[in-house]
Amino acid sequence: MSERKLIVLGTASQVPSRTRNQGGYLLRFDDQGFLFDPGEGTQRQMIFAGVSVSEITKIFITHFHGDHCLGLAGIIQRISLDRVRHTIEVYYPASGQQYFEHLRDSTLYHYAACLRQCPVAGPGVIFEDETLIIEAQRLDHDVDTFGYRVGEKDSYTVIPEELERAGIHGENIRRLKETGRMTLDGKTIAISEVGTVLTGQSFAFVMDTRECPGAYELARSADLLVCEATYLSDLESLARDYGHLTAAQAGRIARDAGAKKLVLTHFSQRYITVEALVHEASQFHADVVAAGDGEHIPLPKRRRPL
Amino acid sequence: MSERKLIVLGTASQVPSRTRNQGGYLLRFDDQGFLFDPGEGTQRQMIFAGVSVSEITKIFITHFHGDHCLGLAGIIQRISLDRVRHTIEVYYPASGQQYFEHLRDSTLYHYAACLRQCPVAGPGVIFEDETLIIEAQRLDHDVDTFGYRVGEKDSYTVIPEELERAGIHGENIRRLKETGRMTLDGKTIAISEVGTVLTGQSFAFVMDTRECPGAYELARSADLLVCEATYLSDLESLARDYGHLTAAQAGRIARDAGAKKLVLTHFSQRYITVEALVHEASQFHADVVAAGDGEHIPLPKRRRPL
Repeated sequence: MSERKLIVLGTASQVPSRTRNQGGYLLRFDDQGFLFDPGEGTQRQMIFAGVSVSEITKIFITHFHGDHCLGLAGIIQRISLDRVRHTIEVYYPASGQQYFEHLRDSTLYHYAACLRQCPVAGPGVIFEDETLIIEAQRLDHDVDTFGYRVGEKDSYTVIPEELERAGIHGENIRRLKETGRMTLDGKTIAISEVGTVLTGQSFAFVMDTRECPGAYELARSADLLVCEATYLSDLESLARDYGHLTAAQAGRIARDAGAKKLVLTHFSQRYITVEALVHEASQFHADVVAAGDGEHIPLPKRRRPL
Repeated sequence: MSERKLIVLGTASQVPSRTRNQGGYLLRFDDQGFLFDPGEGTQRQMIFAGVSVSEITKIFITHFHGDHCLGLAGIIQRISLDRVRHTIEVYYPASGQQYFEHLRDSTLYHYAACLRQCPVAGPGVIFEDETLIIEAQRLDHDVDTFGYRVGEKDSYTVIPEELERAGIHGENIRRLKETGRMTLDGKTIAISEVGTVLTGQSFAFVMDTRECPGAYELARSADLLVCEATYLSDLESLARDYGHLTAAQAGRIARDAGAKKLVLTHFSQRYITVEALVHEASQFHADVVAAGDGEHIPLPKRRRPL
């Protein structure tokens, strides 16, 4: 499956409402499924959204307030029940180790998940392979909180005309794409000679924070920035007191960090509709949407350079 | 509020489905609110059902499989958040003490609930006051499991004609009702002399068990029996293997124990509709309904004797 989109599982801050479950977000990124901050009921929200736990490859917890992690218990139990065979990494603030364990061992069940515990002790790169680099940044909430950024590395895409010119065909094209180089008639050709750079995409997840350097760092040039916007600006001092952002602050972060698309979420239950929050953030950024439970929000299309 | 009814919050066994949340049941009994087996998402199901956590006065957990208790974490957090002032007793199998604690301490929050831990170590009476007697009975599941029975004690209701004949008026009627006796012209009159017995009502909760003596004991003459019926009879051997009942077995328990109304629930996800389960149980009992999420099922009206 080569699909890149955010599947919104819940959008409420603190407590659920009739229309919004506690938060939960699945980023489907090619063959990866990154689950962020599963609140209570995420197991069922996934059913409504047509998503299976077997899609999950990594789980990220920003912090251990219940609305950001209570659903982890049910997700781990469902992973066990469905006998998901692959290893799933779980990233969470290291200081919350006991909460991770309590959630994992909250009830009697046959634990059969393959979880790799990846406690995050400080900012920096937490995962890297040939195609992705994932980092955590410290956020400014009233408990230990990390935001996350999934960055795809730049890659090369081959230009058919250049391949033709170099006389590279069939099996050799596959080898070139896989290894980045191939040898033809004793001459080594690098993909950069017959291809062009395809800029990697990036996704940022900024949850439960005051304005802080970490939020900007995560959001820099992100193709998709999911950012909490708990309140409108008239409650900015309340937001500061509780360690949250206003929609205007989310808009400014997206603008100043150069994020391409801003998805607002984590709405206070006082807002029956969220048009006003979108309107407020839109004063600072041109592409703002409010997340709604069950929505699928595609990453902006990658532009292949001509 | 003088209302007696069961508010169904969830009816699925094991995993939720689109139409059924994991189990959860609130028995509204006059000014009491008894919450049974809150599965994941009960916090939100209560919102859909128009029930507040402040109504809860006692919580009963039959056993610590996730579909019967995962929601306890969110309920306790919501009780804390809403600053519910009264003490709430929580009954659960004593062997699951660590699960109770993990659920209570599953995430970072300001614990402000007044919970009284009431671990149940064996069958018998677990609560008694002037009007209620609540008992637990051991069930036959593959983990330590108790069913519960809420029994109202018989009381007297005064007969207006008898009061008139005895010359009891106004304030004296109140005193007679409150204390069961009053003195008039030097003569003590007991309520039994001017009243008649009002038979107490009873509610039984039988969950996750094979047929066993405890199930019958709980269900004896119950006005309302909530009984799991995970499977149809063609899967009776599967039911036995996993420690569950078929709808026919639930019907026979209700019939043989003399329960007045049988409410089936805890349905396997294989059943898209549950008419067949009701039909099967109805071969043994005349008043059978299937519980549906969000339904309100009144206790049968108490008949005042003439």
